[in-house]
Amino acid sequence: MNCYEDIVLGVEFEIGRHTPSKEEIITFARQWDPQPFHLDEEAGRQSAIGALCASSCHTYAISSLIHSRSPHRLKTAAMLGMQMAFPAPVLPDEELAMYETYLDKRTSISRPGFGIVTSLTCIRNSSGDDVLTMKSSFLVERSGDDP
Amino acid sequence: MNCYEDIVLGVEFEIGRHTPSKEEIITFARQWDPQPFHLDEEAGRQSAIGALCASSCHTYAISSLIHSRSPHRLKTAAMLGMQMAFPAPVLPDEELAMYETYLDKRTSISRPGFGIVTSLTCIRNSSGDDVLTMKSSFLVERSGDDP
Repeated sequence: MNCYEDIVLGVEFEIGRHTPSKEEIITFARQWDPQPFHLDEEAGRQSAIGALCASSCHTYAISSLIHSRSPHRLKTAAMLGMQMAFPAPVLPDEELAMYETYLDKRTSISRPGFGIVTSLTCIRNSSGDDVLTMKSSFLVERSGDDP
Repeated sequence: MNCYEDIVLGVEFEIGRHTPSKEEIITFARQWDPQPFHLDEEAGRQSAIGALCASSCHTYAISSLIHSRSPHRLKTAAMLGMQMAFPAPVLPDEELAMYETYLDKRTSISRPGFGIVTSLTCIRNSSGDDVLTMKSSFLVERSGDDP
């Protein structure tokens, strides 16, 4: 796992991939966001989006899942805040690839053992369309090696 | 369920409540965000936050769950985007109350059957501290009664 000191700004890199199945989309939605177009294919076809698609919460959870499996993952300590957009729907059985670019980093004044990192995360479907863009700020552990 | 025409701007109202148990927090985190301070009480105590707490994805999912159970819920069609902040942690067995204020509404030019609504959502713990503030924009069905 990487610390604050390992973070290099301005370079996009792939974090990992995940392919949500129809069952995964429906199971998540049944528990957390039971809207018809997340639960039923026919309701999806009749919806504004025109297809069964994943809940936005599920899309965010997928970003967290891909992070958790990445060899590049950081020693994060808390999510502070974020801006998210969902430019295209997440459809069943489409492979999603997630990319990250660290935009900014600074050491925390109130918490000397941590840094505050701002990052741009994009999840793209197999057509190359963004299904999630997220600019987030979070606390990351410092290694302690840095003066 | 309410349509675009039912939306009144500028009035905060309670949407509903939810109390996540320790088991719910750990189960969600195990599947989507397996960081030690979401999974284990001792790791939580040793973390920056100082206690086992819910994943930010879980907090967002709770907002969706509370919406889904509300008699005030809207005929939403798609989440467009949002800004979220997590000013305080979500701790086990604390009752969370969610409040909403509609900030803006306009009819969609590209989709005449829908309106675009901007809303401020706050989830507060039993001490009255915000654990989530979210400004979001989403598509809502129009009733068709409006000229």
